[in-house]
Amino acid sequence: MRTEKARMNAPRTRIGILTGGGDCPGLNAVVRAVVKAAAKRGWETLGILGGFNGMLAPVRTMPLDYQKMDGLLTSGGTILGTSNRGPFAAKTGLGNAHEIPAEVIAAAKASFEALGLKALVVVGGDGTLSIALQLFRHGMPVVGVPKTIDNDLEATVITFGFDSAVACATDALDRLHTTAKSHDRVMVLEVMGRYAGWIAISAGIAGGGDVILIPEIPFRYDRICAQVASREKSGKRFTLVVAAEGAREAGGEFVTQDAPCGDRETRLGGIGAVVAEEIAKRTGKEARVCVLGHLQRGGGPTCFDRLLCTRFGAAAVRLIAEGGFGRMVALKPPTTVSVPIEQAVGRLKTVPVDGDLVQTARDLGISLGD
Amino acid sequence: MRTEKARMNAPRTRIGILTGGGDCPGLNAVVRAVVKAAAKRGWETLGILGGFNGMLAPVRTMPLDYQKMDGLLTSGGTILGTSNRGPFAAKTGLGNAHEIPAEVIAAAKASFEALGLKALVVVGGDGTLSIALQLFRHGMPVVGVPKTIDNDLEATVITFGFDSAVACATDALDRLHTTAKSHDRVMVLEVMGRYAGWIAISAGIAGGGDVILIPEIPFRYDRICAQVASREKSGKRFTLVVAAEGAREAGGEFVTQDAPCGDRETRLGGIGAVVAEEIAKRTGKEARVCVLGHLQRGGGPTCFDRLLCTRFGAAAVRLIAEGGFGRMVALKPPTTVSVPIEQAVGRLKTVPVDGDLVQTARDLGISLGD
Amino acid sequence: MRTEKARMNAPRTRIGILTGGGDCPGLNAVVRAVVKAAAKRGWETLGILGGFNGMLAPVRTMPLDYQKMDGLLTSGGTILGTSNRGPFAAKTGLGNAHEIPAEVIAAAKASFEALGLKALVVVGGDGTLSIALQLFRHGMPVVGVPKTIDNDLEATVITFGFDSAVACATDALDRLHTTAKSHDRVMVLEVMGRYAGWIAISAGIAGGGDVILIPEIPFRYDRICAQVASREKSGKRFTLVVAAEGAREAGGEFVTQDAPCGDRETRLGGIGAVVAEEIAKRTGKEARVCVLGHLQRGGGPTCFDRLLCTRFGAAAVRLIAEGGFGRMVALKPPTTVSVPIEQAVGRLKTVPVDGDLVQTARDLGISLGD
Amino acid sequence: MRTEKARMNAPRTRIGILTGGGDCPGLNAVVRAVVKAAAKRGWETLGILGGFNGMLAPVRTMPLDYQKMDGLLTSGGTILGTSNRGPFAAKTGLGNAHEIPAEVIAAAKASFEALGLKALVVVGGDGTLSIALQLFRHGMPVVGVPKTIDNDLEATVITFGFDSAVACATDALDRLHTTAKSHDRVMVLEVMGRYAGWIAISAGIAGGGDVILIPEIPFRYDRICAQVASREKSGKRFTLVVAAEGAREAGGEFVTQDAPCGDRETRLGGIGAVVAEEIAKRTGKEARVCVLGHLQRGGGPTCFDRLLCTRFGAAAVRLIAEGGFGRMVALKPPTTVSVPIEQAVGRLKTVPVDGDLVQTARDLGISLGD
Repeated sequence: MRTEKARMNAPRTRIGILTGGGDCPGLNAVVRAVVKAAAKRGWETLGILGGFNGMLAPVRTMPLDYQKMDGLLTSGGTILGTSNRGPFAAKTGLGNAHEIPAEVIAAAKASFEALGLKALVVVGGDGTLSIALQLFRHGMPVVGVPKTIDNDLEATVITFGFDSAVACATDALDRLHTTAKSHDRVMVLEVMGRYAGWIAISAGIAGGGDVILIPEIPFRYDRICAQVASREKSGKRFTLVVAAEGAREAGGEFVTQDAPCGDRETRLGGIGAVVAEEIAKRTGKEARVCVLGHLQRGGGPTCFDRLLCTRFGAAAVRLIAEGGFGRMVALKPPTTVSVPIEQAVGRLKTVPVDGDLVQTARDLGISLGD
Repeated sequence: MRTEKARMNAPRTRIGILTGGGDCPGLNAVVRAVVKAAAKRGWETLGILGGFNGMLAPVRTMPLDYQKMDGLLTSGGTILGTSNRGPFAAKTGLGNAHEIPAEVIAAAKASFEALGLKALVVVGGDGTLSIALQLFRHGMPVVGVPKTIDNDLEATVITFGFDSAVACATDALDRLHTTAKSHDRVMVLEVMGRYAGWIAISAGIAGGGDVILIPEIPFRYDRICAQVASREKSGKRFTLVVAAEGAREAGGEFVTQDAPCGDRETRLGGIGAVVAEEIAKRTGKEARVCVLGHLQRGGGPTCFDRLLCTRFGAAAVRLIAEGGFGRMVALKPPTTVSVPIEQAVGRLKTVPVDGDLVQTARDLGISLGD
Repeated sequence: MRTEKARMNAPRTRIGILTGGGDCPGLNAVVRAVVKAAAKRGWETLGILGGFNGMLAPVRTMPLDYQKMDGLLTSGGTILGTSNRGPFAAKTGLGNAHEIPAEVIAAAKASFEALGLKALVVVGGDGTLSIALQLFRHGMPVVGVPKTIDNDLEATVITFGFDSAVACATDALDRLHTTAKSHDRVMVLEVMGRYAGWIAISAGIAGGGDVILIPEIPFRYDRICAQVASREKSGKRFTLVVAAEGAREAGGEFVTQDAPCGDRETRLGGIGAVVAEEIAKRTGKEARVCVLGHLQRGGGPTCFDRLLCTRFGAAAVRLIAEGGFGRMVALKPPTTVSVPIEQAVGRLKTVPVDGDLVQTARDLGISLGD
Repeated sequence: MRTEKARMNAPRTRIGILTGGGDCPGLNAVVRAVVKAAAKRGWETLGILGGFNGMLAPVRTMPLDYQKMDGLLTSGGTILGTSNRGPFAAKTGLGNAHEIPAEVIAAAKASFEALGLKALVVVGGDGTLSIALQLFRHGMPVVGVPKTIDNDLEATVITFGFDSAVACATDALDRLHTTAKSHDRVMVLEVMGRYAGWIAISAGIAGGGDVILIPEIPFRYDRICAQVASREKSGKRFTLVVAAEGAREAGGEFVTQDAPCGDRETRLGGIGAVVAEEIAKRTGKEARVCVLGHLQRGGGPTCFDRLLCTRFGAAAVRLIAEGGFGRMVALKPPTTVSVPIEQAVGRLKTVPVDGDLVQTARDLGISLGD
């Protein structure tokens, strides 16, 4: 009798979820999958609002009813909000992990307890997962879900959001292609990728770019202009250039400025504009720049990302059930796996300069500016 | 007998077609429709390359085989190329018609004769059609097809390319919407429309914009910021602003600079960036700008434009058959009609400030910045 | 003092809105626009669920908070639900208006009063608007918003949902085009349009169809096969056929069966399959059919429809404010207008057989099967 | 002197390429990549038309100029044509390899020699690659590129065309979702997948399906109906069912009929219709079916597939350069590799019933009908 009553009164298992860093397509799909998979086990899910900041006073949360996940699979952004600033943030980036102040960690842990959470799902990129890792080391049971539109996170073959960003950039290239050709112009598309050129090289190949500039391979203007000239000679009077925001001239420096972790904002006068101007000056051709910027972050996920996010979300809940804290779900095709978060953060997955993608570009006669 | 032989040897009727001004989605669909409709009548079609400049030495043309129109219905740009510069161009815009030098007209007419053309289909906007009108007045049998992505041409309810540009801008708004919401930001989208705000107000309404700035209605920053504040008060912590490139502050001046007809290029430091910066300064909120630029011109036409272009192309050939020279095809729903070219050029169709679109925006609580 | 108190206690104006008949893209966008435009005037809006049936016992309604219209602009379907069945429905179609039983009308009027409504916005096609007209004649203050994906409603140049349906059908044609060409096949696409061929002829032209079969022009198999043969002769070994579901052989009968108003369902063994089989038999070529069916109804609206729906919704609220009951909003480009509902219902707007669309098709060498 | 002259007159290396089996998005992108990568090495490429049949009298070929690959990256279908029939075809499928007649092999080899080919790139699925393998065993230097929209080929993590097919099916689910919800209906979408349910389960998860039926897991109607009832109970009055064409009732048989290799055609009265009817009968709810059929094959590739195809094409040329005949390019993320063709053919890669995808579906409360 007592047992029965106790069981009926027993609080349901409750887990939390938050999204951190810059938003990207698929965050909501992860949230939905976590909430649904948790509900399937009889757990309830609480959303933490505004990234980790939502765990500090004033604590901000949102109950996530598994019956009301309508529309989340396909929608962009994050219903939980996110944050790049505040007590947790710091100048991380490029493996410079930083120590979160002890009182901030203590406050987060206190909120975790007060909210009655058994585990926390942290969805984010390098910066966000670095914070998660520190909280885990201080005893908080966290599991991670890897998100970057840049795909520069180690320990997973791909991060969600990346396919959507590439699709956006490729679509932009398709558009610029027709207008470049009609007007015999050089068109430069600047895409995201401060330290890694995954979007640039993927979209560049998929979108028929003629020159692809990535941070991993410093470029020389004479090589770019040689490509323009070579095309001109063969009767193709236009050239499509894709430049990662972090592309830089050999011997040169980053044009984009440093910014707090996760707050990278493409500047209108970034590398794309610089490259376009220099090409125009050197070749005498009309050159125009298009900075894709936030368009890459916005909008709903591709179906590839919708599937990936759902797999990741479900896997995160399984990871909690197995007690796999301090770990992150990852894709190791054809399956999802889990890896220690520490394998993913603090270093950067860059495009291998002698790898398959770069080789494909070279094989097709695409210039990498070197 | 002689008659029969004469007829068999008679040269086929040959017409020419050229595309002028900035490119836009649907130009190829018009070319395809003209070529196919001409072929149906037993005529052949010759493409003039590079706009009107293709009629000057060295004359550049391209035979258009009606069997090889594959892919033109859906592709962006123009296979004929276009030109904004050269002997025909001049500072037109805003009704300032200019005189084409007599020798240029003579050269064009000579080419017309030498090419054996019976008529010329001119596809373009205000600048291009102004040239066509002058050539017509000097005796060249031309018919016009109205093209602008800005929709600012008189005498037709709509121009082709406009629906595609609005679709592009609306899609961009959808993307910015999710990222603005996730980050509690103000996002400013700058779209085309130097003198008329058709794209801005159409995409602004279709894309759920909160503030729409058009050239027809000078704006005040305090009104824009009041809208931001009002939304904030009601719990909506983000705001979407759509600004036509020609939007300007009440009492202010155009930020964009004058450029030769058809060569308008969105500048990265245009009105969008100015507005974003001012809003950020006044409200303390994060504000970002996205300049859509050439993306609006590029890519394939929407199905609406594909249909419209095909109707226009077929109607242009009928117009030639009827001898309706000096006229332009136009859409007067539900049908196509023809109107004198002179009714279309030299003035600008702006958004009526007390019309249905502006009223719709106001009814929905969208601020027009006034 | 009393006046002040009275005003403060005065009930807010409340209007109702319902959606009837088959769903189509844009219904939610109309709902959103009505709710927002009403809120701007200080009115509140009540949603009636399940079409007119929601006004009968048990009355089913849903308060529509203007702050919670997020996502409605872009989403498909209708949050209000709809109904093709029940006490109001009857075998209408083709102008056969029917009498709604007096007790049903009385019940609807009683609900209207009980709900405290000042007006009712009815969003629907011929069947739904016919009911609205009868209720108006019995004293209920209704205004209409014209919806059909078929575009066969009189008194408006276009209905919302149509552009979205055409876009869906055009996209399908693009897909069938590539596979037909790769396999040298005849592909038949069956689209909606029981009595009017607007979707078929619009998508057929926009999607590069070779044969377009519409209810307005009975077809002959020998004419269709002549087109297949003619293409074969010119080296084009595939043919795209677009057939409206109501297309029929000259002298033949409708293949699709009669169904209650609004409940038209494309049958898999409909005219498309019949035509494909007959072509295969007569020409010896492989022929395949694709029945687009509900895909045309589903999904979000195009940006064209999003704009149109918003204009319609705002105009409907203005119509109420002006007391224009018994009227329907309509598009008379470039503006919205209002017309008596009775001008729209009870007859069908078919494709003019000597109009611009049919002429365009013929000009391009597209066969209409006659 | 002689040497120099001989070298100058030496014929350029020439390779051939053909596409076989059912068409799918990305074939042209592979062709383009092969031609461009070959040209980069100074080789020329000859297209064999109509699949392997193009190598039999009358031999049909098409020179592929690397300068004229415009539009191939994005277009659907195959410019080389394909074939499912003829001397090479046979009832293969499910690992039943068949012997190609010796005289057919001899004829193909003779053509290969006569055309002066150094190698042949064969792009196709199980059937086509089985033929390639036999030709290789008889001495022809072939390399393979794996294509199936079904993704049921062994030895590669993914085949091209699959992502595009899943995107098409997911988009269809999005559309059916809104109409199902508006009308409280059960909608059944039948997708490709005769022996393997990859499309069904991937699109089913990505598109928010409620029931997913795949060949690997025989279903029971009572389980499906239990899901419908369970949703009804929780207030969700609609259900989305995704059925692979090869799905079957536990203890039942395939509804689709056997067909020659590669000629599988979805039948309108296939499993989808059967399932819809049975659900309607058992639950009393309205149920509709949509057969996606050829729409999945048609249209351009997704950007994912555009990238994959380009990587595959470039890798195939590298494989030839390395003399890796009898091998096939494959994706082993994050890189492309090559594997013996024999590892890929003659068996089927089915969805693991205890794998990550099925588990994800179960975790989310999606019924697999078992």
